[in-house]
Amino acid sequence: MTNFQRNLSTGEVEIQGSVIYHKTEYRERRNHYAFFSANCPLAGFDTDREAFLGLYNGLDQPQTVIAGQASNSIASGWSPIGSHCIEVILEPGEETSYNFILGYVENPEDEKWESPGVINKKQAHAMIAQFANESDVERALSELRAYWNNLLSKYTVQTHDDKLNRMVNIWNPYQCMVTFNMSRSASYFESGIGRGMGFRDSNQDLLGFVHQIPERARERIIDIASTQFENGGAYHQYQPLTKKGNHEVGGGFNDDPLWLIVGTAAYIKETGDFDILDEQVPFDGNADHTATLFEHLKRSFYHVVGNLGPHGLPLIGRADWNDCLNLNCFSSTPDESYQTTQNLEGRIAESVFIAGLFVYTGPEFVELCKRRGLDNEAATAQAHVDRMRTSTLEHGFDGEWFLRAYDHHGHKIGSTDCEEGQIFIEPQGFCVMAGIGVEEGLAQKALDSTHARLETPCGIVLQNPPYSRYYINLGEISSYPPGYKENAGIFCHNNPWIMMAEAVIGRGDRAFELYSKIAPAYLEDISDIHRTEPYVYAQMIAGKDAVREGEAKNSWLTGTAAWNFIAITQSILGIQPEWNGLRIDPCIPKGWDGYTVTRVFRGDTYVIHIMNPQHVSKGVAAITVDGTVLMDHILPVAGDGAVHQVKVLLG
Amino acid sequence: MTNFQRNLSTGEVEIQGSVIYHKTEYRERRNHYAFFSANCPLAGFDTDREAFLGLYNGLDQPQTVIAGQASNSIASGWSPIGSHCIEVILEPGEETSYNFILGYVENPEDEKWESPGVINKKQAHAMIAQFANESDVERALSELRAYWNNLLSKYTVQTHDDKLNRMVNIWNPYQCMVTFNMSRSASYFESGIGRGMGFRDSNQDLLGFVHQIPERARERIIDIASTQFENGGAYHQYQPLTKKGNHEVGGGFNDDPLWLIVGTAAYIKETGDFDILDEQVPFDGNADHTATLFEHLKRSFYHVVGNLGPHGLPLIGRADWNDCLNLNCFSSTPDESYQTTQNLEGRIAESVFIAGLFVYTGPEFVELCKRRGLDNEAATAQAHVDRMRTSTLEHGFDGEWFLRAYDHHGHKIGSTDCEEGQIFIEPQGFCVMAGIGVEEGLAQKALDSTHARLETPCGIVLQNPPYSRYYINLGEISSYPPGYKENAGIFCHNNPWIMMAEAVIGRGDRAFELYSKIAPAYLEDISDIHRTEPYVYAQMIAGKDAVREGEAKNSWLTGTAAWNFIAITQSILGIQPEWNGLRIDPCIPKGWDGYTVTRVFRGDTYVIHIMNPQHVSKGVAAITVDGTVLMDHILPVAGDGAVHQVKVLLG
Repeated sequence: MTNFQRNLSTGEVEIQGSVIYHKTEYRERRNHYAFFSANCPLAGFDTDREAFLGLYNGLDQPQTVIAGQASNSIASGWSPIGSHCIEVILEPGEETSYNFILGYVENPEDEKWESPGVINKKQAHAMIAQFANESDVERALSELRAYWNNLLSKYTVQTHDDKLNRMVNIWNPYQCMVTFNMSRSASYFESGIGRGMGFRDSNQDLLGFVHQIPERARERIIDIASTQFENGGAYHQYQPLTKKGNHEVGGGFNDDPLWLIVGTAAYIKETGDFDILDEQVPFDGNADHTATLFEHLKRSFYHVVGNLGPHGLPLIGRADWNDCLNLNCFSSTPDESYQTTQNLEGRIAESVFIAGLFVYTGPEFVELCKRRGLDNEAATAQAHVDRMRTSTLEHGFDGEWFLRAYDHHGHKIGSTDCEEGQIFIEPQGFCVMAGIGVEEGLAQKALDSTHARLETPCGIVLQNPPYSRYYINLGEISSYPPGYKENAGIFCHNNPWIMMAEAVIGRGDRAFELYSKIAPAYLEDISDIHRTEPYVYAQMIAGKDAVREGEAKNSWLTGTAAWNFIAITQSILGIQPEWNGLRIDPCIPKGWDGYTVTRVFRGDTYVIHIMNPQHVSKGVAAITVDGTVLMDHILPVAGDGAVHQVKVLLG
Repeated sequence: MTNFQRNLSTGEVEIQGSVIYHKTEYRERRNHYAFFSANCPLAGFDTDREAFLGLYNGLDQPQTVIAGQASNSIASGWSPIGSHCIEVILEPGEETSYNFILGYVENPEDEKWESPGVINKKQAHAMIAQFANESDVERALSELRAYWNNLLSKYTVQTHDDKLNRMVNIWNPYQCMVTFNMSRSASYFESGIGRGMGFRDSNQDLLGFVHQIPERARERIIDIASTQFENGGAYHQYQPLTKKGNHEVGGGFNDDPLWLIVGTAAYIKETGDFDILDEQVPFDGNADHTATLFEHLKRSFYHVVGNLGPHGLPLIGRADWNDCLNLNCFSSTPDESYQTTQNLEGRIAESVFIAGLFVYTGPEFVELCKRRGLDNEAATAQAHVDRMRTSTLEHGFDGEWFLRAYDHHGHKIGSTDCEEGQIFIEPQGFCVMAGIGVEEGLAQKALDSTHARLETPCGIVLQNPPYSRYYINLGEISSYPPGYKENAGIFCHNNPWIMMAEAVIGRGDRAFELYSKIAPAYLEDISDIHRTEPYVYAQMIAGKDAVREGEAKNSWLTGTAAWNFIAITQSILGIQPEWNGLRIDPCIPKGWDGYTVTRVFRGDTYVIHIMNPQHVSKGVAAITVDGTVLMDHILPVAGDGAVHQVKVLLG
């Protein structure tokens, strides 16, 4: 006997008044049902998909709609659907409105039935009653509006540029919230619990919403840290429902641990909540085996220190941020997954990207040590950071730009020595963000090379030249057509790293130019090419080597939104949360006269007027807070919940 | 960075002449591509789904078809499709024909490219050349016809009843072959390797095709036995690709082991290949740990003997043939799977069905022992069988019919003591097939009760009365709506057991009446109710308590076909493979004058004329083979490859 797709046999519905109930297998065991209601009498209804669509009709012309007549079908098995048929005659100019409510109910064990075999609909009726009239819906919508207005009020900007205002004030933070709500475990492209949430992804997503919902960010950090291994390593993914690590994929992505420091530092800088560091957090979801969050961060830091390669650079493991650069995989079997295929224990392949990430985030850990009075700990950590900086300059620079990595054989990747894939975007971004080579002028060299070799009208491609064939020592990255995905596509996720790097060396015009090349609001004119909603970032835009250059893919569910938000709000507009306050350090196009940022920070509201009479890109000449001159460039936390007027003079 | 649905980004196609090649991610690693060709010049083509369908068109009206104009789209990412546009003008009465070929190619490592980056299409061209002209296709079709004619020629019948002839000669054996080819690991309802093949299922399926492709049946038996555990237990499912047991579901279905004896006996009776018993077969897929197939059968037999309950009946374990009767599960969590939920080690719940199956198949094992000269082994086994028969009569009969089981608390299931589910079909079938209670007249009682309590115009429901609520001590069976699936649906899989049981007690009219109630050929007149192709058995027909009584579900991929084939060809038409030959023992409607079966058996062809001048149902008066009178009712194996004329007189 076979047991497949029982729901094909058992789909059940019930009609009561103008409400359609979907109650497949609702019994003493199953406790949930769905409903779909209308707040008016029905001329008819349908609950059976075939009866509604017709045997051969497409979804674009359901039989009952074409016929203008419902068949009052009661689904029994196959595919239950819900459709209301309402008859209405409208005089010229007359209008009317209806409320339709789609709801889901779970009944408690002892309240499942209103009478034997009849579902208890009390909760459904209550939900429907809430929205009986048009005014109820308007009330609910205005509550929703208020909810979003509040979320979107934490950081707003007024500039001369409507598109910029729209991105910063509405759509970019909105996408950050959607990304938080859905993470990567549901999307247009994924569903179910197959994938889970990324350890790396979730820490980065957090950067985009921590100022909106800091308490949720706190939970998320604890959840993520709770999946960390004792040795500081991490599952690559975990399940949001069970909060357990995803054994399918496992770990070995050696950049993962560091992102926990990035996320935690961002949370503390936003909230000043240093107490989170003392939270007892499990290892590998084991409540009996815990340590403070600070200890987790320490293990993250030392997981890198303890896994260095021949050049003193971090071992890449299974992969770093670029999941598709698989240097220890050597997969020759068609269709096997690079994420789960057995990985060589090779301790040769190193990642310059992780080196940059370490130098970027290491100082945060050092600072946290100091603030806990662990000066020796701080000094030791700082020494590791300095050593990494030196190793990167010695072995991570290739003359005109930062190398990407060393492969399993110790050969350079992202070097002029390479036939293809001579330069990669990631290390140019993170090494410069970390300040590596800034004094030496290497940072500018790296960014000029990025400009010359990777930049296109649609953004910066991930690497170049693209791989024209499969390289078994590089893995998945070389399995894609040129110009797509990691094989030289434009990743909207790492483009902001270059914007931020340009800001580090003070090139505001370049930084903003890069921002506007991929910011959706600026792409409306090429919507027919871009082919994604002009208010949402996509994961990738097809690169210059692609058949459809400029076509975006995989919108919404990407960590892209957070980094673009950080790049524009912190690096370019220059309002940066710091341990003790808000650092003011814009890096803007010289042409700008100024702009105003309103920032809610730790309960106070700062209205920050930036003035740029000298038309510089960077450099704060003077700051006043409520008329008082500020000695440094960090707004102190007033803590009075009041509105503070801040004037900033650039020059 | 997220890695979802890479194919959305990387779909690739290539057009050459009138051939569309789908080559997504074909590289030095991936080695396969598909092609779709036409044997005529193209006016155009499409390979991009959106371009072909249009943005909002349903599948029922693709834009290019409506427009009568291809857009020559080259897919790049998203969803590659293949569509040829051909222009042709036909005069009145004129006709023309085209060949379209859909093909799949895997290239060897060293023959992947015809030039750098260009796929080697040699194999595709060769396949296309094979079918260049209409005559090529006709040739191929006639070869296919010949292939099927040969497969379907092993058992054919000529009766006065066209529908019966059609079922026995074509559609039933055809479905048996499809079931063999697809097993349960692919269907309208399942795809991928999620489910795997059933240990129990595959052994039963084998009964339906062993006479058509005995050598494949042999392989299948070895494959199945190779997944068996040392203790005689079995994985419930195994993966056809890896031939490893399915750990997800695991074992503990205590009827599973016995089906290996059923399948092996059927294979030996068909072929006379006793040598298969000496094959070395692994346990749990471990090639280093093997035993003879005979030893596997012995462990199957003793897995039951070693797992008896308080009444000396077999413990049911996780479930028996009825996967949904979960007596040790006690699941109260909505949506958890009954097949994987932790199972109590309770050694109380017993299955009368397994008892019947044991008494039915035990004698096969006894016979195999004797033929290997293991007389003590045979005597011991026979004693176990006799004891089981006694236990079943003592504790498995409920006054008017056989009990179904005892639950975890030792309470009866399928008894008048029960509020619902008072009588089940399975034990009535298998206990009588095993001959239990025939002499005592209990068999007839059981079948009369089945008739009175379970039979409907559409077939025999699984049990009655259906469960109106969820019983935590019964499990999944009570989670369905009344009349569907195991909760009193009509399973076409176990209906034949009653046909065979009726034949055991000589009631040919009843047996055939039951056969024709569910045989698709007899259901054409109610196709609008039955709603499944009138040539294929479905897993289930909605029972008398269902909303849509008579509606069939889950066609094709069900073990149903094999048992119906055995019931009609062996029990009713009465041509039964035996260890030493073909037993002739029809049990037919009294009204029949006779019929002719042509049976290919071990290389010989027997044309068997059954004559029924006395209009009896059962009872062979005389048999002649090529004019010579036969002393018993078993046609000996001539072994001369010739055609033998057999005359059988009933009376």
